[in-house]
Amino acid sequence: MEELRVSFEDLIDTLSVCLIQHGFENHRAHRCAVLFAQADRDGVHSHGVNRFFLFLDFVKKGFVVPENNPELIGQFGMMERYDGQFGPGNLNAEFAMDRAVELAKTFGISTVTLKNTNHWMRAGNFGWQAAEAGCIGICFTNTIANMPAWGGSEPKLGNNPLVIAIPRSSGHVVLDMAMSQFAYGKMEIAKKKGEQLPSEGGFDSDGNLTKSPIDILASHLALPSGMWKGAGLSLMIDLLVSILSGGNSTMEVGEDGVEKGLSQVFICFDPVKLDLTDWLDTKADAIIEDLKSSLVFKNQSIRYPGEQVLQTRSENLKLGIPISAELWDKLTTLSRL
Amino acid sequence: MEELRVSFEDLIDTLSVCLIQHGFENHRAHRCAVLFAQADRDGVHSHGVNRFFLFLDFVKKGFVVPENNPELIGQFGMMERYDGQFGPGNLNAEFAMDRAVELAKTFGISTVTLKNTNHWMRAGNFGWQAAEAGCIGICFTNTIANMPAWGGSEPKLGNNPLVIAIPRSSGHVVLDMAMSQFAYGKMEIAKKKGEQLPSEGGFDSDGNLTKSPIDILASHLALPSGMWKGAGLSLMIDLLVSILSGGNSTMEVGEDGVEKGLSQVFICFDPVKLDLTDWLDTKADAIIEDLKSSLVFKNQSIRYPGEQVLQTRSENLKLGIPISAELWDKLTTLSRL
Repeated sequence: MEELRVSFEDLIDTLSVCLIQHGFENHRAHRCAVLFAQADRDGVHSHGVNRFFLFLDFVKKGFVVPENNPELIGQFGMMERYDGQFGPGNLNAEFAMDRAVELAKTFGISTVTLKNTNHWMRAGNFGWQAAEAGCIGICFTNTIANMPAWGGSEPKLGNNPLVIAIPRSSGHVVLDMAMSQFAYGKMEIAKKKGEQLPSEGGFDSDGNLTKSPIDILASHLALPSGMWKGAGLSLMIDLLVSILSGGNSTMEVGEDGVEKGLSQVFICFDPVKLDLTDWLDTKADAIIEDLKSSLVFKNQSIRYPGEQVLQTRSENLKLGIPISAELWDKLTTLSRL
Repeated sequence: MEELRVSFEDLIDTLSVCLIQHGFENHRAHRCAVLFAQADRDGVHSHGVNRFFLFLDFVKKGFVVPENNPELIGQFGMMERYDGQFGPGNLNAEFAMDRAVELAKTFGISTVTLKNTNHWMRAGNFGWQAAEAGCIGICFTNTIANMPAWGGSEPKLGNNPLVIAIPRSSGHVVLDMAMSQFAYGKMEIAKKKGEQLPSEGGFDSDGNLTKSPIDILASHLALPSGMWKGAGLSLMIDLLVSILSGGNSTMEVGEDGVEKGLSQVFICFDPVKLDLTDWLDTKADAIIEDLKSSLVFKNQSIRYPGEQVLQTRSENLKLGIPISAELWDKLTTLSRL
């Protein structure tokens, strides 16, 4: 598969044009394009341009409404609840984290919830956003059911991504993890390459753990990360987002087989307001330094969450963002219509 | 191993007497005893009476100071920071969650942190405490290093337990999970019985994944739950607790080889203050009902986090709490001194 390198700016401009064609107002098209391009810039290709045509398809079908903004439906000091009105998931999430940062800068701690929102694409974006604003950020979302309950033989749990971000002068620490051991996108890639997963990644239709992406994609029973533990955490995330936002649970999200109308929570801590700045950097630096100093097994190396993102970002900004020639052709063709 | 059934009240009374002998004031002895006994009542024997003599040993050595209470060292509206002054970890944690509940009832959301505290024994106690007070509770702690960084060949991460509790009229949902796939206590039991773990639970000293509790207890390299994912989450918990509390990180906790001076965070949401009561029960009930309705693989059944606790608690309150005859003899002998 031939691959090109496209500049960050060209990618954003091209995506923007396509979004404007699909009913996005100019500024919103730009922000939405930036969020897609950031995923590829940071190496998270599964949730960047690779999802763009699916996203446009959701716009065409009316599942994602380009002009809809989150509407305030509840306010309690440091907590605000919004109805996402089925607007673009990444723009809604960016708005929500931005609002969480603002509230944290006033109150020290904040929580913003979204109901009736859509897939936020790359989860990590909103952790980096909080960290770049100097805040500790935590956010999580539910999804359509794509994992079994522990012991179950049908999808009941979402892979419900969780993001935790710690701002740090020498490189933010950002964990971006879904509750499945492997992303479905990763399984699709392994299937295309005819490869097995590096470890068990789900169940076949008889309930046996398997490394076969073909079997797991057929059963739709991805392995919860840490088995019963990831299954438990996924359930708690679904409870938290749907109760705190008043929105749909995973079960309701998937009712008509389309992943829309999600529930999300964004929590921020402002280190300045909470008087944590004396030790924020020193503690984080010491912990990361200790981790990196670990003795390792042969041919192993240790990275902290977010470290590889910064390396990839730097390389991609210099050399251009890798994108398949076929996809780029499809994008530029669309943008010239 | 012969086992007795002891009433909840007798267990509390016996533990209380021993604690008073070790310098605990009457009321604090009672509360501390209740927290130990609750663990056994709820079936979490690894963190109940089985730990009691180790706890008394820590008191004798001065690592745990019976009379020390948390001291307020920072206050920012809905957030309070305390120095646990090396008091009993379970009493400190009960105090902190209690304070988090009070603050949430005033502000809607709250965060209480503890530095210089000690092992809180059974983590779940403090989730049940929040839920019984009608609050959504989240708490987490660091520990001494007992897992490798992903790729590492020495302990660098704590198993850093995380508790999330959702109050529900028909049975609270309480997740109590450490970041290791199996507890060291569970590995000790498997070793004694000459059994292998049901799945890979750590690394041997050559870096191979193994089901052998003997090898893992020797290497002290428990498997992070979900491999790199649990390792990442453990690191983030250590960053959060040490930054928010200003306390020791896992690295510092273990400096002299003794697990003391931990850092902890307690977060509460009050559904009444946040106007969530209209849907708290209905959403939680619907999610749990949907989970329990799942089709299952042969001989499997599905439980939600906390469900088994309620069953075990009910049985143990009726029949008495199971305790080894040897341990009960040791306890009653001590209490008669």
